[in-house]
Amino acid sequence: MRPMLSTLDTPAALVDRERLARNIARMQSRLDSLGVKFRPHVKTTKCIEIARAQLEAGARGITVSTLKEAQQFHAAGFDDILYAVGLVPGKLQQVLALRQAGCNLKVITDNAAAAAEIGRAAREEGITLEVWIEIDTDGHRSGVKPESAQLIEVGRALVESGAVLGGVMTHAGSSYDLDTPEALAAMAEQERAGCVRAAERLREQGWACPNVSVGSTPTALSAKSLPGVTEVRAGVYVFFDLVMANVGVCAPQDIALSVLTTVIGHQPEKGWAIVDAGWMAMSRDRGTQKQRHDYGYGQVCGEDGNVLPGYVLTGANQEHGILSREGAKDEDIEKRFPVGTRLRILPNHACATGAQFPQYEAVGKDGAVVTWPRFYGW
Amino acid sequence: MRPMLSTLDTPAALVDRERLARNIARMQSRLDSLGVKFRPHVKTTKCIEIARAQLEAGARGITVSTLKEAQQFHAAGFDDILYAVGLVPGKLQQVLALRQAGCNLKVITDNAAAAAEIGRAAREEGITLEVWIEIDTDGHRSGVKPESAQLIEVGRALVESGAVLGGVMTHAGSSYDLDTPEALAAMAEQERAGCVRAAERLREQGWACPNVSVGSTPTALSAKSLPGVTEVRAGVYVFFDLVMANVGVCAPQDIALSVLTTVIGHQPEKGWAIVDAGWMAMSRDRGTQKQRHDYGYGQVCGEDGNVLPGYVLTGANQEHGILSREGAKDEDIEKRFPVGTRLRILPNHACATGAQFPQYEAVGKDGAVVTWPRFYGW
Repeated sequence: MRPMLSTLDTPAALVDRERLARNIARMQSRLDSLGVKFRPHVKTTKCIEIARAQLEAGARGITVSTLKEAQQFHAAGFDDILYAVGLVPGKLQQVLALRQAGCNLKVITDNAAAAAEIGRAAREEGITLEVWIEIDTDGHRSGVKPESAQLIEVGRALVESGAVLGGVMTHAGSSYDLDTPEALAAMAEQERAGCVRAAERLREQGWACPNVSVGSTPTALSAKSLPGVTEVRAGVYVFFDLVMANVGVCAPQDIALSVLTTVIGHQPEKGWAIVDAGWMAMSRDRGTQKQRHDYGYGQVCGEDGNVLPGYVLTGANQEHGILSREGAKDEDIEKRFPVGTRLRILPNHACATGAQFPQYEAVGKDGAVVTWPRFYGW
Repeated sequence: MRPMLSTLDTPAALVDRERLARNIARMQSRLDSLGVKFRPHVKTTKCIEIARAQLEAGARGITVSTLKEAQQFHAAGFDDILYAVGLVPGKLQQVLALRQAGCNLKVITDNAAAAAEIGRAAREEGITLEVWIEIDTDGHRSGVKPESAQLIEVGRALVESGAVLGGVMTHAGSSYDLDTPEALAAMAEQERAGCVRAAERLREQGWACPNVSVGSTPTALSAKSLPGVTEVRAGVYVFFDLVMANVGVCAPQDIALSVLTTVIGHQPEKGWAIVDAGWMAMSRDRGTQKQRHDYGYGQVCGEDGNVLPGYVLTGANQEHGILSREGAKDEDIEKRFPVGTRLRILPNHACATGAQFPQYEAVGKDGAVVTWPRFYGW
């Protein structure tokens, strides 16, 4: 029997294939028109089928957040991989094993001592490792500042240890805290300018530094132009989520990931329906809590994917979600959502919600379902 | 080579075997002395090895939160299983398949229509299904009130449809919001009294209702006496976590689950160290946010497991954690935690953090490691 949406057990992680394809095409055509390469971040999906669709649409290479992602995607035939978390010497053997297996894996650092140690150890194994320098363009996490002395120190440590200084990369993660087109465009320019400036300073030292890599979903969708940038990275755009809707770079009806759930009970005097999607399914992510619209643990939609305005998951236990109406209590909650009613819940943060499931159920226009595995762990 | 703590890749989910054994013994001896059976909730660990240790210590049967848990534990030889999430007719075929495979699986409901449908459908398959009624003793989630007309309606629907009314069960989850011994003892008594009263009302109808099941980790550890109760359920006690430390039922040094992590960088002018345990490892759970001590994303300990007072994860991205000192910035963060330093992070919520990992690394006193798989999904 052909698996269909209507016969799936709940909870399940649904991917709307039409929306997925639209999101992939939107980002690719935007970056094509800006004249830069696109290197999607596959940490969002950890799914071979979806990453293949991104490459088929025109992406060049992928970004990963763990060495397990690098191993799994390399085993599936992906080659051009950027590991975008600062490498420490303790993980070097895993990196070298991937390089020896033929994977064109590039790593990053923002620390001169680690850079020297990485370059030295790789050289001892007879491997020339390509390392990019992580740049801090918005103060939100890691990286060296574009104008800092450390930038040159890290570059020198790489070059002198025999590594290849392959480029610079940055991620303006603080773009997630913005919600106007003007502020987003300004952050995109700040991210671009800082990263390009870092590359220029390295080149002034006589080092090639061919790659200049920037990106986050909000800045990638907000940049006016990207002179000096060679590639953009973005991850969550492929699904989008409620955090991105609040940032203003998508609408709720663009969100391609949802959790299929069933109503299992009520507390009518409170206006509650209880569903079988708790935080184990939705994740504990409350990313919209401090944004302009707090969606609780998610926005409720019909089984057909249409948003039911005003209905959200206001609470979550491990396997129970509490569904209620924002504002005034719904006196007819039992009649509106009888036991057995099937609903979809849009997530706050697609990367976190997807990670709770071993597989996606990819649903086409006709309701037919294809299962796409995803992996987890380190 | 024998796997050792010192050679584990990071991040990893560590279980301190001494603390685990102590936590198991503490709860079992407490419930033994209260004269009730103990049915641990295995949703916390989803790990066969740990559940076996709980049974060996004296537990009788297990509680599960998903039918996948029921399937996996039954396949591993566990038989007496309570599925403690309200059953909807759509999941009945999975339940009946487990019963036909010989599993002594009991289910719960709080809805008369669902009860009638469940009983009828089971009878049609020639299966007598044991159903317990979920009681609401604290208003935090599901269940029927002990004094409600619905209680009798659900009981009648079960009896008339041919199901076996096996008992009543309740979970005073609002105990998680308390933090004094007096309030916890009062909540334990409220949970007990409400559940026993519900059983009495059902027995007045002439129905046997042999089982009276109550519990949450805080109330199980706070009840003064449990007359009328036949069994207690609790889950998170097996690991404990920072939420439970704030509730006051354990100390941080009792917490048996931690995330092993490595320092991968710094932002010295901010007093930050960056570690490779982000929210993908810790989970997005911020359960201590509104408690007396907000631990951010977790309490920092040395690799040896000793708490480093004042150091917490103040922020988290997917694979990056931001470690800093509470209160005044640590000017010596780079010297205190050089790149490559290995640390343990105690979690806010052990059920959520454990779920991020495919396996536990169980560490003995000598640093030797045994790997215990855990499963996930539905």
